[in-house]
Amino acid sequence: MLGRKLVERLAYEGTLSGRPIARVTLVDVVEPLAVAAPFEVETEVGDLAEEGVAESLVRRPDVVFHLAAVVSGEAESDFEKGYRVNLDGTRQLLEAIRTLDRYCPRVVFASSIAVFGTPFPDTIGDEFVTAPLTSYGTQKAICELLLSDYTRRGFLDGVGIRLPTVCVRPGAPNLAASGFFSNIIREPLNGREAVLPVADDVRHWHSSPRAAVGFVLHAAAISGETLGDRRCLTMPGVSVTVGEQIEALRAVAGDEIVELIRREPDESLQRMIGNWPRRFDTRRATALGFRAESSFEEIIHVYIDDELGGQIP
Amino acid sequence: MLGRKLVERLAYEGTLSGRPIARVTLVDVVEPLAVAAPFEVETEVGDLAEEGVAESLVRRPDVVFHLAAVVSGEAESDFEKGYRVNLDGTRQLLEAIRTLDRYCPRVVFASSIAVFGTPFPDTIGDEFVTAPLTSYGTQKAICELLLSDYTRRGFLDGVGIRLPTVCVRPGAPNLAASGFFSNIIREPLNGREAVLPVADDVRHWHSSPRAAVGFVLHAAAISGETLGDRRCLTMPGVSVTVGEQIEALRAVAGDEIVELIRREPDESLQRMIGNWPRRFDTRRATALGFRAESSFEEIIHVYIDDELGGQIP
Repeated sequence: MLGRKLVERLAYEGTLSGRPIARVTLVDVVEPLAVAAPFEVETEVGDLAEEGVAESLVRRPDVVFHLAAVVSGEAESDFEKGYRVNLDGTRQLLEAIRTLDRYCPRVVFASSIAVFGTPFPDTIGDEFVTAPLTSYGTQKAICELLLSDYTRRGFLDGVGIRLPTVCVRPGAPNLAASGFFSNIIREPLNGREAVLPVADDVRHWHSSPRAAVGFVLHAAAISGETLGDRRCLTMPGVSVTVGEQIEALRAVAGDEIVELIRREPDESLQRMIGNWPRRFDTRRATALGFRAESSFEEIIHVYIDDELGGQIP
Repeated sequence: MLGRKLVERLAYEGTLSGRPIARVTLVDVVEPLAVAAPFEVETEVGDLAEEGVAESLVRRPDVVFHLAAVVSGEAESDFEKGYRVNLDGTRQLLEAIRTLDRYCPRVVFASSIAVFGTPFPDTIGDEFVTAPLTSYGTQKAICELLLSDYTRRGFLDGVGIRLPTVCVRPGAPNLAASGFFSNIIREPLNGREAVLPVADDVRHWHSSPRAAVGFVLHAAAISGETLGDRRCLTMPGVSVTVGEQIEALRAVAGDEIVELIRREPDESLQRMIGNWPRRFDTRRATALGFRAESSFEEIIHVYIDDELGGQIP
């Protein structure tokens, strides 16, 4: 989803970091959807975790966006696949870049707030330990360390961005544990019922898909020197409770829409969510110019603008 | 050095965590020195980083001590070797254990305070981010993450201990950047001159080899449940300046011995040491019963007792 939105944005703007884009190569394990763009678009199918694949795919672009990952639930249910794709795949990519002479591209790596695990304070700062409680979070935290070390050694110029939960996620409801944060907004806005499985006081950290693409683009543009040696940053977001999400929906769309949310508590999900971060102090990212929405109402308006053509159907 | 001292201690005690030891298998890339012991001792030569070696070596012991590593300087000068031995070797070991059915040994992993990098506060707490500034520290930090994840998943029962700089290190002076911390004590005590390449106000974190072996043994014995999900701990130590080290030497051995220290400043070493941790708040490890010396004088006495037969020659 993020990859597709990134490519659409690049195609729309035609430039990256103020320079015209000559060519974009899209790589995925399934045939990537090509887009109409004012620059050359190549598509490639390949599994970065396989020996030799990364070497053949890295054709010296100025910027590498590494967004691919086995998602959290799958990395937990299939231990070997998660490590193979999320860790070995990333390492093969970094190695392919390292072993090329006179080549030091900006590498933007999509990390996750899943690198943090309980116990943590109500607000997690930039110097808080990365102690994940999922294999996915572990793999992301390891890749962050590799990215910083490869950068320090001069093999590449990495920036890792820990994305908030992306909300409102477009498309059909999915089975991700975090899916309800989006479902309770998207489904009612489209006239459909949505299930809320947790309590109204559950607090979490969100940004829109548009803001997430903005983070990725800004990470491609910022100066490496201002970043220093710590190349991975928690991205800004909006910290709201589920109750505040619902009140924002009411303010934007009215009572009738809100009535489409049906409360159906799920004890095991509620327990799991107790381990998820609630709020961050992202002063490093903010000082470096990364910007998220400033309220959940704004996040809802972004969804209406970008996915519903500007008005509630 | 730590491995040899650990085996000697096991041989002397004959027990581990209160249970008699039946057999110890020593594994190294060079033929390990066997020791006389009240239990069976096997020695094996093998490189854990090589495919299949770890599988053949893990014969279901109750406790695995993983102390092997390419040291800091070499991991920096030989990038590939450092990752191969320190990361891939450890991962092969963890994988060999994971893939054995009905087997969940205690794995004690020797990590390092090199997992921390500047900027850091004067005193580094248990929740401070691991942001290493060497490839060695990066490899240790990655292995810590793996150890915690494999433990959480139930594949093994890991405890990682971040060792302070071991002082007074016995034997000949070596080329390690941290060598002078030991040299300025050991060499004068043996009637030889020692070079001090940094300023007297350089502060660092020390424990004796005896305390380090104690950490390893205690890590084998503690209950996994009391540790929780964060399986890696900074070990207690003694925080002293070089000037305080010298005054401790004076108190223990007198002015004449101290006069054997020759100041010969090394600007590049002084700069490097500015990035090393100075002091830790190790309340988690202390609450779990890990104990270091309480003064640098005590550290000097341990050297005199363990290496000089109890008196200054």
